[in-house]
Amino acid sequence: MNEISNKWIGTSTIRPDGVDKVVGRAQYAADGSMPGMIWGKVLRSPHPHAVIRSIDTSKAEALPGVKAVVTSKDIVDFSVHTPVPLGIQDMRWMCRNIMAREKALFHGHPVAAVAAMSADIAAEACELIEIDYEVLPWAIEIEDAIAPDAPILHDFIEFEGKPSNIAGTLEHKLGDIDSGFDDADVIVERSYDTRPVHQGYIEPHACLVSVAADGKTTIWSSSQGQFMVRAMTAFLTGIPQSDIRAIPAEIGGGFGGKTIIYLEPVAAMLSKKSGRPVKMVMNREEVMRATGPTSGAKSTVKIGAKKDGTIVAGQATHYLQAGAFPGSPIRGACGCCFAPYDIPNVHTFGYDVVSNRSKVAAYRAPGSPIGAYAVESTLDELAEQLGIDPLELRLKNAAKQGTKAAHGPVYPVMGYAETVKAALAHEHYKAPLGKFQGRGVASGYWFNAGGESSAQVNITEDGNVVVTTGHPDIGGSRASIANITAELLGIDYRRVSVLIGDTATIGYSNLTGGSRVLYASAMVVTQSTEKVIETLKGLAAKIWGIPADAVTWSGGAARPAGDNAGKFEPLTLEELAAKANMTGGPIGAGVQLNTTGAEGGFATHVCDVEVDVELGIVRVIRYTSFQDVGKAVHPAYVEGQMQGGAVQGIGWALNEEYIYNKDGKVDNPGFLDYRMPVCSDVPMLDNVIIEVPNPLHPQGVRGVGEVPLVPPLAAIRNAVYNALGIRFYSLPMSPPRVLEKLDGMKEAAE
Amino acid sequence: MNEISNKWIGTSTIRPDGVDKVVGRAQYAADGSMPGMIWGKVLRSPHPHAVIRSIDTSKAEALPGVKAVVTSKDIVDFSVHTPVPLGIQDMRWMCRNIMAREKALFHGHPVAAVAAMSADIAAEACELIEIDYEVLPWAIEIEDAIAPDAPILHDFIEFEGKPSNIAGTLEHKLGDIDSGFDDADVIVERSYDTRPVHQGYIEPHACLVSVAADGKTTIWSSSQGQFMVRAMTAFLTGIPQSDIRAIPAEIGGGFGGKTIIYLEPVAAMLSKKSGRPVKMVMNREEVMRATGPTSGAKSTVKIGAKKDGTIVAGQATHYLQAGAFPGSPIRGACGCCFAPYDIPNVHTFGYDVVSNRSKVAAYRAPGSPIGAYAVESTLDELAEQLGIDPLELRLKNAAKQGTKAAHGPVYPVMGYAETVKAALAHEHYKAPLGKFQGRGVASGYWFNAGGESSAQVNITEDGNVVVTTGHPDIGGSRASIANITAELLGIDYRRVSVLIGDTATIGYSNLTGGSRVLYASAMVVTQSTEKVIETLKGLAAKIWGIPADAVTWSGGAARPAGDNAGKFEPLTLEELAAKANMTGGPIGAGVQLNTTGAEGGFATHVCDVEVDVELGIVRVIRYTSFQDVGKAVHPAYVEGQMQGGAVQGIGWALNEEYIYNKDGKVDNPGFLDYRMPVCSDVPMLDNVIIEVPNPLHPQGVRGVGEVPLVPPLAAIRNAVYNALGIRFYSLPMSPPRVLEKLDGMKEAAE
Repeated sequence: MNEISNKWIGTSTIRPDGVDKVVGRAQYAADGSMPGMIWGKVLRSPHPHAVIRSIDTSKAEALPGVKAVVTSKDIVDFSVHTPVPLGIQDMRWMCRNIMAREKALFHGHPVAAVAAMSADIAAEACELIEIDYEVLPWAIEIEDAIAPDAPILHDFIEFEGKPSNIAGTLEHKLGDIDSGFDDADVIVERSYDTRPVHQGYIEPHACLVSVAADGKTTIWSSSQGQFMVRAMTAFLTGIPQSDIRAIPAEIGGGFGGKTIIYLEPVAAMLSKKSGRPVKMVMNREEVMRATGPTSGAKSTVKIGAKKDGTIVAGQATHYLQAGAFPGSPIRGACGCCFAPYDIPNVHTFGYDVVSNRSKVAAYRAPGSPIGAYAVESTLDELAEQLGIDPLELRLKNAAKQGTKAAHGPVYPVMGYAETVKAALAHEHYKAPLGKFQGRGVASGYWFNAGGESSAQVNITEDGNVVVTTGHPDIGGSRASIANITAELLGIDYRRVSVLIGDTATIGYSNLTGGSRVLYASAMVVTQSTEKVIETLKGLAAKIWGIPADAVTWSGGAARPAGDNAGKFEPLTLEELAAKANMTGGPIGAGVQLNTTGAEGGFATHVCDVEVDVELGIVRVIRYTSFQDVGKAVHPAYVEGQMQGGAVQGIGWALNEEYIYNKDGKVDNPGFLDYRMPVCSDVPMLDNVIIEVPNPLHPQGVRGVGEVPLVPPLAAIRNAVYNALGIRFYSLPMSPPRVLEKLDGMKEAAE
Repeated sequence: MNEISNKWIGTSTIRPDGVDKVVGRAQYAADGSMPGMIWGKVLRSPHPHAVIRSIDTSKAEALPGVKAVVTSKDIVDFSVHTPVPLGIQDMRWMCRNIMAREKALFHGHPVAAVAAMSADIAAEACELIEIDYEVLPWAIEIEDAIAPDAPILHDFIEFEGKPSNIAGTLEHKLGDIDSGFDDADVIVERSYDTRPVHQGYIEPHACLVSVAADGKTTIWSSSQGQFMVRAMTAFLTGIPQSDIRAIPAEIGGGFGGKTIIYLEPVAAMLSKKSGRPVKMVMNREEVMRATGPTSGAKSTVKIGAKKDGTIVAGQATHYLQAGAFPGSPIRGACGCCFAPYDIPNVHTFGYDVVSNRSKVAAYRAPGSPIGAYAVESTLDELAEQLGIDPLELRLKNAAKQGTKAAHGPVYPVMGYAETVKAALAHEHYKAPLGKFQGRGVASGYWFNAGGESSAQVNITEDGNVVVTTGHPDIGGSRASIANITAELLGIDYRRVSVLIGDTATIGYSNLTGGSRVLYASAMVVTQSTEKVIETLKGLAAKIWGIPADAVTWSGGAARPAGDNAGKFEPLTLEELAAKANMTGGPIGAGVQLNTTGAEGGFATHVCDVEVDVELGIVRVIRYTSFQDVGKAVHPAYVEGQMQGGAVQGIGWALNEEYIYNKDGKVDNPGFLDYRMPVCSDVPMLDNVIIEVPNPLHPQGVRGVGEVPLVPPLAAIRNAVYNALGIRFYSLPMSPPRVLEKLDGMKEAAE
């Protein structure tokens, strides 16, 4: 990391994929087409909870134009009694989530699928499928699902010796929580409630799958990982992974929600049965009804501190909705909620609760915003009781290098305190506020991840560079990799093309998720490029007739290392590439690694709101994010991540929620009624990039993509208190709820 | 090479690409489609030779539906005075061949191209392009082109100090040719004539090219090398190679004719100008008029021998047609014609002659069939004069390990004599012949090639294997690579998927051509697989807690190497793959090499014909090919190569020719009039595979794809003599020509 000489790293170069996206030529999954292609459509359960007694597909199959019908019989059945983990998913649930087997477990749960000559015929055929349901009582909310007489979703799941909807628990302990509270001068304990919110990606799930007569399968789809698509489709269809080629399309947003699949195995079985390529595209209603939001949660937090502000004990209990199958992000909620702080005694406990809603999926720092909302809101009240500035309270207790965290690690070099200091010093924190205006702060943490990545760096015959990696580019990895490769080779970044390989043509690469992609792919690209530079130096040495170690590489050329090496004109990359054709063939190198050393990310947000007390509308009027990014390889993309997380947090805090009706059915499955923030809802979101380089990474990178969504919920909630003097303990703080509280306050005042 | 244990190498496994091709789902270049796609069409010269004074495209551009027009102004202009070699092509000629610049040099030469909303509109627009031609005299045949008053195609090409249509020469010398002939007891000297023949691939040239607004270019096309497509398109359009992704479609035949391109740079410029993807598909007439056949030639051969049959001198002069631009395969004609023989004094000389015909392209062992036709026909007469069996004459003079060849090499281990011995011993050679039936023999040689190849071998999470290489599969490389990988890993070949990468996702790989693909790709796949096996052994060693060198790999599993290593149950590939996910990530390795050691290939053919003396039809009634293949990794494909070469040779010998009319225009540009053999024209072609393993190759492979086309021309010609007593000195021996000879014979007898 030579800060001074960096020419491309740290600059916001033109996005290599920008033009195609702007002019509409980028190929998304729904843009695919194949000769003979037919259309698949999913039939979904009209009941939130029902035994499937029988399915009669004969009338549908007889409809002219129908080419195949599949039900759960066509999907591999994993026994519910033996876990089959694949990444963060368990195939026992996946096989039942993509196609209901014994029971339909939520309204919108797939129960069958049809492929036909047109989407209309497929839809018509779905209506001809006759299903004998035994409708069961259902539970949507956590309190209903854990009530003693709750309808049980999975009778083989037990908790404390009885069938239960509590599918799992997680506990972290540090020190002695009881003696910690005994030492405290002040204790604050509060309970909170958050609602499930959807990732809200613009592009619905879509795929085009072709299974040939010999089983060779090609999948074009939009996902956060072509290797995940390949593996899950193989598991759920029985097609060997080696027979599947999963080709990643451009992705129109994922935010974690495309780390799992819904359509591909169904389309594969429809294609296998029909002998034709099958295209499936969800509509927005299907996305909202049947793809994962993140969990709603009920949390209780108790924090004890000395009078001087030293926190001595922190306790949190989180109940998280998993949806219809186990697997809520309790690890994120429990592991991250106290992670910014150096607290000697910590105890967190999480419950994974199933209920009759669509299964949750990952959503940007899964679980962490829920945990941070509860802890950071409680800290605000603690600061108030202690009479300490809320940022000063955080700074006093900030975790630092060497701090032992409750979820396991002893922290390495890290920049949390730097984010708080930067916020304290920032003009925003001192700016005056008007009537019904308030300011709130909150911090957040995300684990970040390393894992498997592969890269290939090839020099073209005209001396340019093609870099291939195996991760769908969601957050700007192509642009960042171009910067890094250009920097290492000492050439203009426009001479570097960065592409995404499919599962057949690049080594295994884990998901685009966990804030891992740039961290891991920069590592493999750096090592590959270094190998290429060694080859180039060797070639120059051969041409000059000097030893390879007498050659250096700088400024895009091989040069003799000092006068003793001999006097030679530099040989540029173009010159060496041209000569390579005659002296050993074009140059390239690939590296695949299971990377480690991705250290956690921290952020602190400062938020100003203004409340319209007539309409109950909370408006964010100023927002500044302070984040330790390690090193911003492409600052515009880093800022985009920071802004994107903040705006998603604003939606979560202020408006987004699923509204279930009395039939256990979502009443607002569309973007008109499910109210996400649009541009006019937010001010320009300001960012302060803090760079405390990660010493374990060649460019100093830390993951940046997820932690921006962690602080906003509490920051906004604390700002609303500052504006109104009203503490909210549940989200969203939507106009009806704000008006209700304001009315309550007025009534109390009267 | 452990012959005994081979389970998959040497077996004709099911072709991995077979099902898709049989059911019609394989994606050829013309099957591609993209949103917004428009159609490109080439306007071609109506004159065989004409100065292009001016081109007015304004009316075409004004036609509704027309989106772009290109002329040579849009193609990079390489100065005719400076060679720019790229592989076997020179960009000076390529840039003028794909779009006429100063002059149109053959009937059908592209002069402009249009892209429009439909193919019909594009064709209509072509008719609106106004070109002011100055028509020049032309020369089609070699004798016309080298006549003293010949019209000169390129006034900057000089021969012996004067502008000439002789564009180049090549000479090989060994020993002292004059003293060789002085030593001879018998000398035979004859002259021969062959006609240009087309490769006759079923699939016309086609491509779909998309150039985005930022220049990022994607090419789907059918070719013998995606890296060639990328490089040539980059050279001819000025787009950097790193901005071009060339994706290989399945290929419907190439035989050398798809080692160059015609449409891709034109489509790229049409796409760049129009801002839309452009599809171009030739029709058969365009293929026949404007894509390369191989050369027609005029050869003179003189061979001197002792009475005992020892050949002491061999001389050959070959004039080869290059078409409109320099570059005929004189190297193949001169280098290969005497290569099967150990002759102390050899002299070959080749002339590269341009004329007003479409530029020749490579065609299976380019030049060698022409040279062999002349030499092997002369040998037949020599054997007759010496009273020696023609195969015994060849065996007596057969080159062997240690022989110095006139074209350069000292031969390594090789199997030419084995092919002659096998033919001599074969029942076919002794079988009785009827009236008007005759038998002929001939031998042939091809250099074979190594060169650059890249491979990636990845183990999937379910323990199967994906192998990617960078060569379009024409002759069965996928099946052969599956055999080799399965053999090395000790697993069922069905667990190995072999795929072809595009230019972005696999390292540089040179053309599918030169009989090089299996030779080179088996090498890189073997090395990659060996690396993977090392990783697997290391993983087993880690699991067992023993040193890596105490683990062996056999039968698809890691095993302790002997009792001293400890007692452990074998760990299979599936088990290790499953554990790899938790202990270091999935396993894979890639290798890229510039391979050497591809030794020449030899074949001897025995052919029986029957002549219908009423109709003049020569029918091949029995045909046996004897070929040293090194090692037949997939025998059915090897036999397919042997049969395919023989049948193409039958067409060349008996029927195929371009018929030019008085206007310098091909009169038979279609498969009805350009008569290639169909199934009913040939008997089942027999093959004898001879395996003299190449010691420089891990599986003993030699190239097999090209030499099968070398012997047939002379074998059939010699068989016709044996049937009729008539020596033909020119091809094709088509019914009119046979009748003419028969009539002449009758007249002479009268």
